[in-house]
Parts: sequence; structure tokens; C-alpha cells
Amino acid sequence: MTTCGRERHPTDYLTVDPITVKLSRFGVKLSSDAGIASLIDDLGRAMSGADDLIMMGGGNPGHIDAVHRLLKEKLAALAADDTRFRELINIYDPSQGHIRFNEHCARLLRREYGWDVGPENICLTNGSQTAFFMLLNMFGGRYPDGTMKKIRFPLAPEYIGYADLGIDDDLFISTRPHIEYLEDRQFKYRVDFDGLDIGEETGAICLSRPTNPTGNVVTDIELRRLHGLAEEHDIPLIIDSAYGLPFPHIVYTEASVFWDERIIICLSLSKLGLPAVRTGIVIASRHIIKSLAAMNAVISLAPGSFGALLVEELVQNGDIIELGKKVVKPFYLEKANKTLACVHKELRGIPYRVHRPEGAMFLWVWFENMPISSLELYHRLKRRGVLIVSGHYFFVGLSEPWQHSQECIRVTYSQDDDEIARGLRVIGSEVRALYDAAGATTS
Amino acid sequence: MTTCGRERHPTDYLTVDPITVKLSRFGVKLSSDAGIASLIDDLGRAMSGADDLIMMGGGNPGHIDAVHRLLKEKLAALAADDTRFRELINIYDPSQGHIRFNEHCARLLRREYGWDVGPENICLTNGSQTAFFMLLNMFGGRYPDGTMKKIRFPLAPEYIGYADLGIDDDLFISTRPHIEYLEDRQFKYRVDFDGLDIGEETGAICLSRPTNPTGNVVTDIELRRLHGLAEEHDIPLIIDSAYGLPFPHIVYTEASVFWDERIIICLSLSKLGLPAVRTGIVIASRHIIKSLAAMNAVISLAPGSFGALLVEELVQNGDIIELGKKVVKPFYLEKANKTLACVHKELRGIPYRVHRPEGAMFLWVWFENMPISSLELYHRLKRRGVLIVSGHYFFVGLSEPWQHSQECIRVTYSQDDDEIARGLRVIGSEVRALYDAAGATTS
Repeated sequence: MTTCGRERHPTDYLTVDPITVKLSRFGVKLSSDAGIASLIDDLGRAMSGADDLIMMGGGNPGHIDAVHRLLKEKLAALAADDTRFRELINIYDPSQGHIRFNEHCARLLRREYGWDVGPENICLTNGSQTAFFMLLNMFGGRYPDGTMKKIRFPLAPEYIGYADLGIDDDLFISTRPHIEYLEDRQFKYRVDFDGLDIGEETGAICLSRPTNPTGNVVTDIELRRLHGLAEEHDIPLIIDSAYGLPFPHIVYTEASVFWDERIIICLSLSKLGLPAVRTGIVIASRHIIKSLAAMNAVISLAPGSFGALLVEELVQNGDIIELGKKVVKPFYLEKANKTLACVHKELRGIPYRVHRPEGAMFLWVWFENMPISSLELYHRLKRRGVLIVSGHYFFVGLSEPWQHSQECIRVTYSQDDDEIARGLRVIGSEVRALYDAAGATTS
Repeated sequence: MTTCGRERHPTDYLTVDPITVKLSRFGVKLSSDAGIASLIDDLGRAMSGADDLIMMGGGNPGHIDAVHRLLKEKLAALAADDTRFRELINIYDPSQGHIRFNEHCARLLRREYGWDVGPENICLTNGSQTAFFMLLNMFGGRYPDGTMKKIRFPLAPEYIGYADLGIDDDLFISTRPHIEYLEDRQFKYRVDFDGLDIGEETGAICLSRPTNPTGNVVTDIELRRLHGLAEEHDIPLIIDSAYGLPFPHIVYTEASVFWDERIIICLSLSKLGLPAVRTGIVIASRHIIKSLAAMNAVISLAPGSFGALLVEELVQNGDIIELGKKVVKPFYLEKANKTLACVHKELRGIPYRVHRPEGAMFLWVWFENMPISSLELYHRLKRRGVLIVSGHYFFVGLSEPWQHSQECIRVTYSQDDDEIARGLRVIGSEVRALYDAAGATTS
């Protein structure tokens, strides 16, 4: 590609590289150096072993031996069955996803939760990210009548992966949470319903539960109130349950989930241990599912069959729920507790706080009045071989600056315990030096 | 979802169902009753055996026993190898796709074709459709300076799957081809370079080669001229090689392919026999690849690992090219010849013509001056249990009406020979009756 004749404008070109590929607005917007892109790149390099880094960034799930062995058996069975193997590779699924899988899934949800769903309420996608790309742009952005609608996060911080997927600008609006101070240097974000002034500008309410990045589980009472607001404003309530209920059930508190046609629940196989398989599962009204299936056809032709066939039996017999409750959740709960103990040990003397770990696979650590920004801390830690994620990425859609948003980091505890301990030691030493230099360490 | 208070405008709502889900422009545009959506639905239902239909629509590849057995072995090996199995399910790939696969692929292309590519020139996607969703919206649509650019098909008909994926309206512009009349009731579309008046409005040139739906292979000379035009206008030339070179090589004529940084080649594993695996492979300049990888992160997080790991060895040792040339191409060539003979038999007496089958897995049949439209013919045939695709969907971007565009059907010959023969008999009887009623059958 050669340069074009006129003066360059910075937004004309890729920001990822000083080159001159001319791209559309869509191209520029979706291919700039997105937070999610740099995150995924860090993650890919670290997980592939290409660099010698301690991986405490990213959302790669852990290696759970029991899950590994179970799914290896399922794969071997697929490889031994000509009919299912042909389905696995040689036959396009409908754009709504694998028919039998969707039937099994609907039956499971009816049976276990009493939800009034059939296969017409389920659509598979090539991963949950693709589902959110479709859903958030379906309900946010420019409407046919020319109005612009936003996706509302009832509290920030919220998942980094949403931040860059808007085709239209300024897709998100979020509200600063209440901070509830808890014992043992912990805190919990609570939805500030007084600040949640939903109007005509809101196309949908969206939250992850448990929340990525904080491990917060929005309470049942909060969820009911959000549902009421969605009803009142006649908009959908989108619940990203990639870490939550009904599976993989990485939830450490008492929490329940419900569904009706107002609600769109997004599930995933990733956090059960299958991120490379790319299977998202959306449960919604049949009208929304029809729409998603049509968009799947346009964007993906059809979702892949691999995830559906690999876990088909687990969904059919309900074992997928037990697997979450009895294997996956305890695995992460134990790691959460170990990591939390390690945080208290390695960060001693630093004015840190940790969001109460209620689920998912992250600790969210807050360094109040830290002398540098969390992004600068990320760079310093990366130079010392430790990957975390700077918290600032997760505060999308806030209307005004908030110092707190520059003071938090996300620490993933899904990988090796010893590495996590080593990583936390590095974090402790780096941050302690910062506060020491500023004369702010507590004794 | 309840209705909103004001008068409904037809574009406010899904056209797929008389309901009242309020959607953004993006949502409405991408989830209307797209040609590709109805096609995929027909296909999914027919292939799943849910309805008793003869499947001559869709693009599902055939079942090739040798490919089936080979890949079954590869899958069994994956299921037996703990390290690779963990890669297969448990570790996110980078957003550019599986690192080793991309390295093998680049080496193969350097070795076999002498292309100046490295892994930085390759990006995997969750199927070729997703690659095109990104590419065509990257180069077509609204630009940062406010101008609108179009994707130019050098000849219509062109692949139906492109038609609906524009985020902005009127993304495509195409040119009516020359029709070259050949012996034996055949014809071939040729690019009309005189009518190809490329100006500032064109963001990229795009063609499928072999062409879906016609089985046309744009000649090497035509391709060189298109490359020259792309150079002249400083825009990319996108070649959809999902059926073509270097693999799966379903090309029956002498044709070659070349690559330089002006060219974006899109390959797929689907037509080797792995459509349910959803693996697209894009080869382009490293700048475009970087951009695609960033978009992959936003739209898909990461591409799935299944396809890359399943065929990794075949790409490493080059067998994937031999598999195309020596197994896949002969399979389809034989079916093309059988189907063509069957067309001549079953359509005798009807003023039909067939596009010369030069590749892919379709016959493109033209019923000149047919008394009804091809869409009406599709409906009549579906009622008689035969699925074809109406040709009108494929004439996207023409500036003026063209009777020819209502007179063609696409007939897939990838499935069972006996079913194809039965289907063609039904087509013959239906169409013969039409011409008979109009007094237009030849003797």
C-alpha cells in the first residue's frame, strides 16, 4: 500500500502502526489499539510460553484435571463415532446453533430452574464476545428514527471486552458505585440506584455477574431492582453470566438467577475450561433469538459445532451444572482464598484494599492514592515479568473523572499458585517502593 | 417486550416476525430476513434431516470418505495427547490465531508458491464469513472524512453471503458481465472491463474465485487486469478463494494465483470438508493483518483453535495441498460431470443454458425468458421437496434491472448423486410445464 497524496489525519489510519492503510470508520474504530486487543495479545503470548511472564492478566481459565480428563473422554468418543464425527466437522449447523444441543439445553433449564424456555429461546454463538458484539450493537447505537441509544452499565467497573465493540461512538453510560467498606481490608461495590437515572437514552441495561473484573456478585435484591427498571423503561436486561449461573457456577455467595422475556442471559463454555472452543449460549425471547440467529448468519454463517457436541451429553443429563458446582467452583474458591491470603501477606504495610471475592477468577486490588496510575503500574510490572491488567480500562461510560478508576488492578488467580505468589511478591515490592518514595506507607 | 406507544414504522422492527423488539439500525439491518439467513436455515433443516428435502441449495460440502478417515485419525491423536488437547480446549489463541499454525502456513506458502509471507501476514477467523464481515466493512462504508466507499464486484453474480453484511447501506457496486456463449448449451461470464469504471467511490475490489454461485473461474489474465486496476486506484484486491487455490483446489481449469501486499486472499477449511469447524485464513499485508487481529479481539476475542490444531500437520508437511488436488478436486469434478450429464438429460427440450463448470460445487442454470421469476421457481420447487437457491440473490450492486438476474438458479452438486438426479428430474418437470404453458418449449 502506498501513501495517498493528502495530509494524514491521525484517525484516517490505523493507530496500531504508522502506516497508511485507508480504512472505513468501522475499520478505524474496531481496529485501533483496543484494550481488549492488547489484553488478548499479552495473554496469547504469555499462555503460549513465547515470553517468560507470570500471567496474572487475561481471563484464561485454569487447568482443572478432572475437567480435562472428562472432556478428553468425550472427545475420544466423538472421534470414534462416525455419525457424530461427521456432524462435528462436515455439516453446517443452522445459524441458531446445533439443534439437539439447544433442545437439551432448554430442557435442562426448564427442569432445573423452571424457566419457560424451549429451543426457540436459545442461540449459540462463536463465543460470548461475539454474542455481545451483536447484542450491544443491536440495542445500542443509532436507531432507525435517528435517535442514539446507549447501553447502561448499572455500575462501573464493568468488563473490558465491552468497551471497544461499539460500532457507533459513545455506546456506554455507567454509574459510579457506592463503595461499601468491609472488614479485613475488603470492600464491595453496590449499585447506586439514586444515581441510576435511566431515561430515553438507554437501549438496554447490561451487567456481568459475577463481574469481570471485580469478582463482585450483584445481589439478588439489586438484580430484582434492575429488572424492575428494565420493565419500567421497556428495555432488555442483559446478564453476562459467563462466570455465573447456571454454569460454570463460579459464585461463592448465595445468589440466584431468574429468567423471563425481559432478560437476556449469556452463558459460555469458556470458564468451565473451554475458552479455545468458542461457544457462547444466549437465552432470550424467541424474537430476540430469531434476530440473533439472522445476525449470526450474516456475521458468522453458522456457529461452530465443536462446543455443542463436546458437552452435549453433559447438558442432556444435567452433569454440566454439577460439574460447575462440585468441581469448577471449589477449584476457584480455593485459589481465591489462597490468593487473598497471599495478598494480605505480600502487600502488608501498603494501603491496599481488595474487592470481596464473590466469584469469577480475579482479585480486584485498590491502591488508594497510589502515586502513579494503574496503567503506569501495569507497564512497570510487565517490565518485571508480571502481567496484570490496569483497572482503568474497566471504567467505561462514566460521565466524569474519578481518581479511584486509576488506582485499581485486576489480578487473575486462575493459573499456577506458586507463580501467583511470586507475582504478588513483585507487585508488593513495586507498589511498596512507590508509597515509600511518597512517604505514604503505613506501618 | 411490550409495544411502544407510537405508530409503528416498518423498519423499526424485525421483519422476520411481526413483533415489537426495538432495535438499532445495525440490529434491523443485520437481522432482517437476509438471503443468507433463509439459505442457512433451509440448509440447516435439510442437512439435519428435520425435513425430507432434496438438498441442492446451500454450500454444504460433500462427504468424502478419505478426508473423513484422515481427519478422524487426526482427532483421535488430539484426544490422546494431553498437551495438544489442552491447547485445543483450554488455552485462548492470540487474536491473530494459533501461532504454530500460522507459522506452518506461511512456510508452506513460501515453499510452494514463493510468496513473500511470514506469520505476520496471516490471521485466522471463525470462518471465512467473519473475515468478510470485517474486511468488507473495513474497506467499504463511511470513511473518517465522511465519504462513502463501496466494495466493487468486477462481475455479478457474486456470492450471496456478502450481500447482507454491510453495516452501512448500499455497500456494493457491481458490473454486468459479458456472456460468452459456448458449445453444448454452456456459457461463461467474462469481466466487462469497459463497464468497470472505477473511481473514488471504490474502497476495494472483491471477487470469489471460483465464483460462488456460478462455478466460474475468473481467468489469470482477468485477474492480472483487476490487480492492475487495484494498483492504479491504490485499493486492495480481495480474492475469496474458499473453493480455490492453494487449497481446497476445487478448480477444473488451468488457473494460478499470486499474492503481493495489494492482495488479500481468504482461504477456508470448509470446502475441504470442515464447514462446522469454522476456520477462515486471511493472507494480507502485515498492516491489514494487524488490523484484522484487533477486530478479531473485539468481535470474537480470539478465533477457535479446533481447525488449526486438526489440520496442523497437514499444513506443516504440505499434505493439505495434495489433499485438495488429488482427493477433493477429483471428487467434485466427477460430480460436476455427472450432474451436467443429468442436466442435459432432464432438461431436454427446455431453453436452458449452464455456466461452464470450472470449479466450486455448483451448477448455475439459466432459463432464458422463463415465464416466472427464479424466486417463484424456488418456492414451487421447495413445495415439491427440492431445495435450490434462486439466482436473484447473487446480483448485488447492479445499477439497473437485468432480466437475466431473474432467470438463473444455483444447483449444488455436493450431496448424493441419486438425490441430485431425482431433484433435477423435478426441476425439469416443473420448468418444462412452465414453458409448455407459455408455448415456448423447444423440441
